[in-house]
Amino acid sequence: MPAKNYAATRFSSLDRINGGNVKDLAVAFTFATGTVHGEEGAPTVVTNTLILVTSYPNNVFALDLTKPGAPLKWSYVTRQQAAAQGVACCDVVNRGGAYDGGRFYFNTLDGSAVALDAATGKQLWRTQLTDINKGETITMAPLVVKGKVLVGDSGGEMGVQGWLTALDAASGRQLWRAYATGPDKDVLIGPDFHPFYAGEQGHDLGVSTWPPEAWRTGGGTMWGWIAYDPDLNLIYYGTANPGPWNHEQRPGDNKWTTTIFARDPDTGAAKWGDQLNPHDEHDYDGINEQILLDVPVDGKMRKVLLHPDRNGHLYEIDRTNGEIISANPYGYVNSTTGIDLKTGRPIINPAKETKLGAVVHDICPTASGTKDWNPSAYSPRTGLLYIPHEKLCMYRENVQGNYPSGTRFVGANVVMKPGPGGNRGEFTAWDPVRQTAAWNIKEDLPLWSGALVTAGDLVFYGTMDGWFKAVDAATGALKWQFHTGSGIVGQPIAYRGPDGNEYVAVLSGVGGWAGAIVSGNLNPRDPTGALGFVGATADLKSKTTAGGTLYVFAIPQHS
Amino acid sequence: MPAKNYAATRFSSLDRINGGNVKDLAVAFTFATGTVHGEEGAPTVVTNTLILVTSYPNNVFALDLTKPGAPLKWSYVTRQQAAAQGVACCDVVNRGGAYDGGRFYFNTLDGSAVALDAATGKQLWRTQLTDINKGETITMAPLVVKGKVLVGDSGGEMGVQGWLTALDAASGRQLWRAYATGPDKDVLIGPDFHPFYAGEQGHDLGVSTWPPEAWRTGGGTMWGWIAYDPDLNLIYYGTANPGPWNHEQRPGDNKWTTTIFARDPDTGAAKWGDQLNPHDEHDYDGINEQILLDVPVDGKMRKVLLHPDRNGHLYEIDRTNGEIISANPYGYVNSTTGIDLKTGRPIINPAKETKLGAVVHDICPTASGTKDWNPSAYSPRTGLLYIPHEKLCMYRENVQGNYPSGTRFVGANVVMKPGPGGNRGEFTAWDPVRQTAAWNIKEDLPLWSGALVTAGDLVFYGTMDGWFKAVDAATGALKWQFHTGSGIVGQPIAYRGPDGNEYVAVLSGVGGWAGAIVSGNLNPRDPTGALGFVGATADLKSKTTAGGTLYVFAIPQHS
Repeated sequence: MPAKNYAATRFSSLDRINGGNVKDLAVAFTFATGTVHGEEGAPTVVTNTLILVTSYPNNVFALDLTKPGAPLKWSYVTRQQAAAQGVACCDVVNRGGAYDGGRFYFNTLDGSAVALDAATGKQLWRTQLTDINKGETITMAPLVVKGKVLVGDSGGEMGVQGWLTALDAASGRQLWRAYATGPDKDVLIGPDFHPFYAGEQGHDLGVSTWPPEAWRTGGGTMWGWIAYDPDLNLIYYGTANPGPWNHEQRPGDNKWTTTIFARDPDTGAAKWGDQLNPHDEHDYDGINEQILLDVPVDGKMRKVLLHPDRNGHLYEIDRTNGEIISANPYGYVNSTTGIDLKTGRPIINPAKETKLGAVVHDICPTASGTKDWNPSAYSPRTGLLYIPHEKLCMYRENVQGNYPSGTRFVGANVVMKPGPGGNRGEFTAWDPVRQTAAWNIKEDLPLWSGALVTAGDLVFYGTMDGWFKAVDAATGALKWQFHTGSGIVGQPIAYRGPDGNEYVAVLSGVGGWAGAIVSGNLNPRDPTGALGFVGATADLKSKTTAGGTLYVFAIPQHS
Repeated sequence: MPAKNYAATRFSSLDRINGGNVKDLAVAFTFATGTVHGEEGAPTVVTNTLILVTSYPNNVFALDLTKPGAPLKWSYVTRQQAAAQGVACCDVVNRGGAYDGGRFYFNTLDGSAVALDAATGKQLWRTQLTDINKGETITMAPLVVKGKVLVGDSGGEMGVQGWLTALDAASGRQLWRAYATGPDKDVLIGPDFHPFYAGEQGHDLGVSTWPPEAWRTGGGTMWGWIAYDPDLNLIYYGTANPGPWNHEQRPGDNKWTTTIFARDPDTGAAKWGDQLNPHDEHDYDGINEQILLDVPVDGKMRKVLLHPDRNGHLYEIDRTNGEIISANPYGYVNSTTGIDLKTGRPIINPAKETKLGAVVHDICPTASGTKDWNPSAYSPRTGLLYIPHEKLCMYRENVQGNYPSGTRFVGANVVMKPGPGGNRGEFTAWDPVRQTAAWNIKEDLPLWSGALVTAGDLVFYGTMDGWFKAVDAATGALKWQFHTGSGIVGQPIAYRGPDGNEYVAVLSGVGGWAGAIVSGNLNPRDPTGALGFVGATADLKSKTTAGGTLYVFAIPQHS
């Protein structure tokens, strides 16, 4: 599955590649994706086949791992509505697919969920879920839970209404849809909804915390990650920012944007919701990953979820009821001065609030957050959470945002720049018990790749100038690195090959929001596109080139 | 220089990588070209910098070999006339650049020759040589001889008039231009022109061997290779096919198409010319490489050039006077029954002649020849010429070709298919003394990559499904192979790195005429484009994907 397991730890139990031999790690084979956009996906390996979804167009390729060089086994080449590329925010990307019961599921930028026969690539069903002319796209990797394919939408800067949908895995038929905003019946908030915090309780908050009708174009999309606790039978995911970015156009809490929801996967009904950034002023989407762990809190084991939010805080939440146990900064933050554990709300720094017509300098983190979509990994062996993230601040000027369907609905000008210290990225190992960083690696460029940790006690991640790195999981010491052809914004995985050996795979191919200056979609009038990043990553064009390639590494067996 | 030396042997004196250790050869680093077209270029390595030109757009990237991972040192990003991509035949490609005296020279598809400061990438001059609206493009790698940059044009299927031009290396100013067709003064045929064969002697044959005015749109472009003999002070190159392909529209020899010329580089004046395929009926361009050797002939050393022609014959020519010493088939041929050494002309097989309205089956070789542009290599250690080539036959139907400037001017429908035996490619080691093949490797797909041979007695070449191979130079035994991300149509090179070790580099990235079915430019009405190849390579889409990447290999130093 996209994050290796339902707990979303991205921990591989393989240990043949370890600190003792990783220096010999070499490229086993490669595969060109045929695209020049940001390859944010994770490959999926199942029954000796590696399956990947490409950034755009969203083609699917299956490689036969039993044969030398892993040649193509099948391919699924999609035709998409051309408008999709035009309306998509921040480069055109896809974050991967999911395998379950002989089927491979993925989504297309133009808003389809697709099921393929994983053995042949034959299309089993294809369900159109969005109206691309309204600016609604899909970029996330689906998760399959109990025969349901969970899919959410993208397009929070286009005035769309966010949702998560469950499709029947066998037929593609829609079973339920939970909107992020609107009446309780649309948000699937029923009588069993019991949020932990008083501010989350009440009826139809998805309407009443908005100006009239504003919830209909209010964002709260779901383009990130879903975790699942089979014992509690709850799925967990976060909703994205409210729209437009100019918050003065939407007085109120703007529920249920930037919210972590716990829902029953069978019905979609919400059990609890934590709105992490009520009335968000900074584009702090809540779509980042949830890692489900049982950890000791004050000497007692608790079922928690860890969520490194875009607002810079590492939330430790009781996943049975939504209580925020702790929330401490895992990077540099000045937009808030902390999280009030009594209310669950951030304590806003008034000096960094945005206002119409005003220019505010040095807001940290930026709209892209202390960490964006790119997921962390957790090792039960070290007890550490490995977080690839950014260290950027922004200039911000709010302007009036106008809503035309299918075009930008932002109302803000943003220019990013390096944060204090000058390094634009960090790789932080977080100790969830001590609630502090165990170690930290400074990176010149923002980190936009996912992380992988293995039982070989190695952590893998990539940089935007193309280095794929393995560091010691205990200390962060660099053990090995290889320069791939393009910047890495993908998600590394490890798998056991047909020969029993361990392989590590990652997609290279710069792009995404942080890399759009290289991969394209550079609209100078688009504050959410690459332009916002230019101040921080203008040098990226002199450090890397576009072009997607899968790299698969192994220890050469003859040496 | 493009072919390593003026003799165009593509022989590297490096021997650290050899049969004993090549099994350990591994990827040292990679670089994405940012394109999805056929990467036919050879990288150029000079002063610890690797410089490459990308297929399209024709950007130039320089990598710093002194730093780990060889990061970008500089880049030169071109803006080109959009029409260039539209008129170019058979995918959009570039065959590389040339270094001389601190400058890096290359050509752009839209018809410019460019000189860059090799240390900084700064443009020193840029000379527009073609009118792109007439369909004239440039794809070849320039050669620098005595301070002159030699450049020729592409577009033989567009009704252009072919030429080779010399530019002043310091200023880009044009010094001379030798057309392939037209009056002697335009072809630079002066009083010192002394062809060996009677059929090549006479005045203004570039006009009189054509219907009135037909030479003006008669092709004879120069998109291949140039060799140079400093002792004789002669350059050697071949001109391309006459246009249109329908030969009944152009009665006569159509001089000087499909001709090997020897010219004085100072003035451009022709010393001799051998028209290998007078009145060509099969698109047998003469642009393939010339390898300059001194070899024993009947016990006496002679200065020869070897030229594996598209018509399937390996020409051994006395390069002092143009005498064809021998011409034997190096692959399967039925379009001719041999070369008449008294006249220098092929003996045409009447059963395989093409006629207006008639369909002729199983013409071998095809329009793409027994070998197309992709160059051979010669080792002085083994005395063998290593020829990567095809084994295809074609269906051919001639139709009336009409000339509109800047569009196709062909007059033929072509569909290719595998030749006898079913294998579509061959790698042949040719013994120029015995005039026979020493060994031969059958390849499933047509070979469209160049060859490299080293003093380590290894021969390197790539396949269209992405394998990069090293074989024993003496026996052809496969010693090593690696599966790159895309099909290989590039030219491998070897170089000594700053650390003193040997590196082997090749561009992966399928395309070119044979690969256009994957890389694009698939116009169903275009017989010269990918369609003609579809019968032979329809399966290529199931074997590889597009995407350019430089791969650099080395023996890991820690192992």
